[in-house]
Amino acid sequence: MSRFLSGRYAGFEAYTPGEQPQDRKYIKLNTNESPFPPAEKVTLAAAEESKNLNLYSDPECTLLRKAAAGVFGVEPEYILPVNGSDEILNMAFMAFCGKDAPIAYPEISYGFYSVLAGLHGIPAIELPLRSDFTIDHRDYVGLHQNIVIANPNAPTGLCLTLEQVQEIVESNPDNVVIIDEAYVDFGGKSAVRLVSRYHNLLVTRTFSKSHSLAGARLGFGIADPELIADINIIKYSTNPYNVNRMTSAAGVAALDENDYYLTNCGIIARNREYTAQRLREKGFYVTDSKANFLFVKNDVISGGALYSALRDRGILVRHFSNKLMDDFVRISIGTREQMDALLEAVSNILNS
Amino acid sequence: MSRFLSGRYAGFEAYTPGEQPQDRKYIKLNTNESPFPPAEKVTLAAAEESKNLNLYSDPECTLLRKAAAGVFGVEPEYILPVNGSDEILNMAFMAFCGKDAPIAYPEISYGFYSVLAGLHGIPAIELPLRSDFTIDHRDYVGLHQNIVIANPNAPTGLCLTLEQVQEIVESNPDNVVIIDEAYVDFGGKSAVRLVSRYHNLLVTRTFSKSHSLAGARLGFGIADPELIADINIIKYSTNPYNVNRMTSAAGVAALDENDYYLTNCGIIARNREYTAQRLREKGFYVTDSKANFLFVKNDVISGGALYSALRDRGILVRHFSNKLMDDFVRISIGTREQMDALLEAVSNILNS
Repeated sequence: MSRFLSGRYAGFEAYTPGEQPQDRKYIKLNTNESPFPPAEKVTLAAAEESKNLNLYSDPECTLLRKAAAGVFGVEPEYILPVNGSDEILNMAFMAFCGKDAPIAYPEISYGFYSVLAGLHGIPAIELPLRSDFTIDHRDYVGLHQNIVIANPNAPTGLCLTLEQVQEIVESNPDNVVIIDEAYVDFGGKSAVRLVSRYHNLLVTRTFSKSHSLAGARLGFGIADPELIADINIIKYSTNPYNVNRMTSAAGVAALDENDYYLTNCGIIARNREYTAQRLREKGFYVTDSKANFLFVKNDVISGGALYSALRDRGILVRHFSNKLMDDFVRISIGTREQMDALLEAVSNILNS
Repeated sequence: MSRFLSGRYAGFEAYTPGEQPQDRKYIKLNTNESPFPPAEKVTLAAAEESKNLNLYSDPECTLLRKAAAGVFGVEPEYILPVNGSDEILNMAFMAFCGKDAPIAYPEISYGFYSVLAGLHGIPAIELPLRSDFTIDHRDYVGLHQNIVIANPNAPTGLCLTLEQVQEIVESNPDNVVIIDEAYVDFGGKSAVRLVSRYHNLLVTRTFSKSHSLAGARLGFGIADPELIADINIIKYSTNPYNVNRMTSAAGVAALDENDYYLTNCGIIARNREYTAQRLREKGFYVTDSKANFLFVKNDVISGGALYSALRDRGILVRHFSNKLMDDFVRISIGTREQMDALLEAVSNILNS
């Protein structure tokens, strides 16, 4: 920190993304990436668009919004494409929250929410989970605060029902409720169809996980056009051309190949259930995740020790330095071969 | 604006990017794009990388920073790649400015500065230009405020000398001075070699104009590693994977093909001088621009009328709705053929 940095960041800690070590080849089960490559049509579309890079991208992302509208089942004016869904979370926090407009979210959730609140000086209302890590949705009903909930939640993978989400949205009519559906395609129920009914609902999506586009950076905000217009004030005043031409073209092609990705999501869901069952057989506690990761612990080895032992064996998983989650590791779901390698490594570690 | 938008944006006006109309084919001389396509190696590199999009990009942009270090003549730790240089401007305003830390800039300059100041509630100190649109650098010497100056300035194209820049940086040791070099490759003198000497200097660059990558979104911040670390706090807390894989690969290739782009910049500079001389012969006042655009006015037709008449003839230029610039239009420099088409249209308009 230099002496020039604004004093309002004193003591603030930035977000730490999952490690991307370059020292050796790992089985990467630590950042919830898809093990499947993008569809061929996607790479071809991006490659073709790379010839036009001397021209700015369309700041309104007209073609991409039209393609996304078909898949999300809403009109294009409900959709705002962004450079990864972290961007729309940041923009929404900036638009709707502030010193006098706190944000509430589960105490255990995507770590980025507390980082954004800290960065922007927004009071955070962190609500505890039940002891089994489920969210008690009644904590949020009639709370009369801005709310952000990941559904499925991270890193537990546990879901609220659509009816519970609806009750939260409906009972906080004077506040914005953000439902972060980064992992919904692996088994959750989407609230997208509620956006035409509730003007205070913002659903966020990412194509990083379900659509094999983590490296392209593509997310979406889906909400009533008035909320979208509010967020666009932030977008046009910070980064008007936020989505580049290649990513936009890749996104259009990915939406056109949606069946390929939904098939992949189905395979990942099956690999998740397979892995969960094997881990339970080995004595692990495994939350009932509907995402593309598992959140697991074992009585004989701590989360940190399991993380290190797996890393020594060439497998990366995620361990969070947070006392509430210290016993756990989060394991991203890859191919069956990758999960078998993980299971074998876990057996070796437990038996050693 | 919905009833949910934070009250702090009341009366705030978002940035308006140059128009991108889709109704017919225009000669686009309105957004300072390069008329030259990216080098073939760039499109091939981006295309190759599109096969790996299921994996996140390297948040540290290690390879890109290394390649940029060679061309900018600084060590990699002085460099922060961003999703277009608007992004680093936003991050720097967030890091170093605030309610109690104003920002000073020329009254006529890149409109984004005042938008950013307004968005973040930063008091703006707008210093008038001389009547010939030059910046009196003495206004900034010993000002003891954060400062941002585009050099060459926009939309005038007029430059400060390197010595003047140095005097400004040196005489404001307790504040950050941002030199926005978006257009420097067309005839300005870069301050990059000063960053190792002055810890308070941030130079920003974009590959949108000189390196034919407007549609890829690639900019750079270049500064002392302590300033870079400060800005990284904002980056990691708002968008850790801000530069996507394809753009990163395109950037590495573009840096490797730097000679191709410098040749193109030379052609654009010659087309600029050619166009400036012809316009002066037609009675235009033309500032001595060193950028890839001209800022021009004529006594017989207003800026708005010239913009409209050119648009009717299929040529887009930029007119700013600002009383200080109302007489002027800004004309981006394209190929010789495009400039000849512009000159012919201007003659027709003046003679009609």
